[in-house]
Amino acid sequence: MAVVTIVGAGMMGSALAFPARENGCEVRLVGTPLDREIIDACRASGRHPKFDRDFPAGVTYHQIDEVDEALRGADLVVGGVSSFGVDWFGDFLLPRVPEGTPVLTVTKGLQDTEDGRLLCYPELWQKKLDALGRRVPLCAVGGPCTSYELVAHDQTEVAFCGRDRTVLRRARELMTTGYYHISLSTDVRGVESAVALKNGYALAVALTVGVNQRRFGVDSPLHFNSQAAVFGQAVREMHRLLCYQGCGTTDNLAVGVGDLYVTVYGGRTRLAGILLGRGLTVEETKAELSGVTLESLVVSVRVGRAIRAAAARGALDAADFPLLLHVDDVLTRGAPVDIPWEAFTFGS
Amino acid sequence: MAVVTIVGAGMMGSALAFPARENGCEVRLVGTPLDREIIDACRASGRHPKFDRDFPAGVTYHQIDEVDEALRGADLVVGGVSSFGVDWFGDFLLPRVPEGTPVLTVTKGLQDTEDGRLLCYPELWQKKLDALGRRVPLCAVGGPCTSYELVAHDQTEVAFCGRDRTVLRRARELMTTGYYHISLSTDVRGVESAVALKNGYALAVALTVGVNQRRFGVDSPLHFNSQAAVFGQAVREMHRLLCYQGCGTTDNLAVGVGDLYVTVYGGRTRLAGILLGRGLTVEETKAELSGVTLESLVVSVRVGRAIRAAAARGALDAADFPLLLHVDDVLTRGAPVDIPWEAFTFGS
Repeated sequence: MAVVTIVGAGMMGSALAFPARENGCEVRLVGTPLDREIIDACRASGRHPKFDRDFPAGVTYHQIDEVDEALRGADLVVGGVSSFGVDWFGDFLLPRVPEGTPVLTVTKGLQDTEDGRLLCYPELWQKKLDALGRRVPLCAVGGPCTSYELVAHDQTEVAFCGRDRTVLRRARELMTTGYYHISLSTDVRGVESAVALKNGYALAVALTVGVNQRRFGVDSPLHFNSQAAVFGQAVREMHRLLCYQGCGTTDNLAVGVGDLYVTVYGGRTRLAGILLGRGLTVEETKAELSGVTLESLVVSVRVGRAIRAAAARGALDAADFPLLLHVDDVLTRGAPVDIPWEAFTFGS
Repeated sequence: MAVVTIVGAGMMGSALAFPARENGCEVRLVGTPLDREIIDACRASGRHPKFDRDFPAGVTYHQIDEVDEALRGADLVVGGVSSFGVDWFGDFLLPRVPEGTPVLTVTKGLQDTEDGRLLCYPELWQKKLDALGRRVPLCAVGGPCTSYELVAHDQTEVAFCGRDRTVLRRARELMTTGYYHISLSTDVRGVESAVALKNGYALAVALTVGVNQRRFGVDSPLHFNSQAAVFGQAVREMHRLLCYQGCGTTDNLAVGVGDLYVTVYGGRTRLAGILLGRGLTVEETKAELSGVTLESLVVSVRVGRAIRAAAARGALDAADFPLLLHVDDVLTRGAPVDIPWEAFTFGS
């Protein structure tokens, strides 16, 4: 029986136990040092505290102290940490993965450089592995997938990306089920950029919902013209950023746009956007969301900074990104939300 | 005072009275022969029967018998008929428009030819005008705009397309308001194809909602993974079709995808998709929607037929369109809804 070891018992990592186990793999779910209570709860009840459904029978649960044992003999290691665990994953976990064992990460995000380049996490981890002289094939998963709907067996399409097609095929073989459909791509930067960028734009779409609540009342019906206007502008700006990243293919854009669609309805980013759109400050918004990971705020600021740096050296035109730069203005400069609708028009 | 004459008192044509009038134009709303009761109601109450808000003061209402008078002196004629009024508009109305007066149409749709080409309505109307030797500059409006939200002054972004940039600029000048933002494009086929194609794909996204209602219960919470999976595939297929039409630009795709986003939540197409997804036959679905225009069903069948014809002569690969062809199978062959999820994956 093939072994899939998942490290990180957050919602996304834990949700991947379902297709892996239902596909017949032995599944070991290992918590990070922050997941001790979750692992205790899983052991006690067979259910993740945030899911409304039990894990499939046979999944085993492990505290971080047992990680080396849990990694032993794994055919695939799933990295299930959030973007706030990137360094821990690179410094603590990756060096412990047995040589040659493929790793598939769910972590979404980008890190900007001083000159405005945007690096994805597999690139950063690869550097660490190279420095250690270790051979661990890195793959990542992107695309529209919320954890609780994967748990509910809703039909889900994702893309696995990595350098090595043979490794990708093996990972797909271990994880494919009748409800979890997997594309393969060797364009790591393309898939990873697309699914990270969508976070900033999902926040932007949600802003319009908050703006309309302020204007028409908190209980007013949802308006979709304004959401769609921002959604369309998001498609344009995401495509421009993917081209800047050297990966502006339709497949990458489609993965990002599909993911944008699902994220607009996701809890945390949507709520943050709505609160900001209603007129709350960034601090007030963070306070309302206390304890909740705000990856979308982080990525928006980083991408905004990268666009400005790239524009300063002439590699991008800031006027091509009125939406993302407005989000950045709101987040980093305390600007009031005032969506620049006219700036989205084209043709003159 | 500039004069805008709107012909067709359906929801979309009537909604355009708001930006035109609020921008200071004289607005004359003329009903088609099917709109007699609507015009009577507008005259009696100053409100369209399907809107929850009065027209701006000063809009005048006219039965079709007064059309020649209403067209006289118009600076812009807005064509507000549905795709079922295309012939009437071309044969009855266009020949009456005074020479040189620009026409802006809201009609969405495509007509397929035997060899699988897809023609948009401005192309068809232009041929009629050319045959008559009449010079009437044709423009069209596309992009995400539902009528009732335009009436509510929700922020809205659309694109006006036409051959003549000077005419487009004049039309924009007449219609722009603080909530109605207008891009300009001379790529008529691109804008018109994008906004017509989205109807078939919106139906496809809605199918997933119905499928899940059948699977999880009619009152089950909405799932978004499956919607997003179809949405992402729609982006891929729409881009391929735009490329086939010779107009696969990002601006066109963004207009179509923004419009797709808003249409997924629009009443008729969404309801049709949900009913089909639940397992109703096409006939049962049409019966449930009796009296309601089903442009999305028409365009899906036409595009499906065009893809098959183009594939037969080697101009397209049918395998690139599993989503639209499944919708077509459901509509024209009575196939049960069984979304081909694995066919959406890429990479091997």
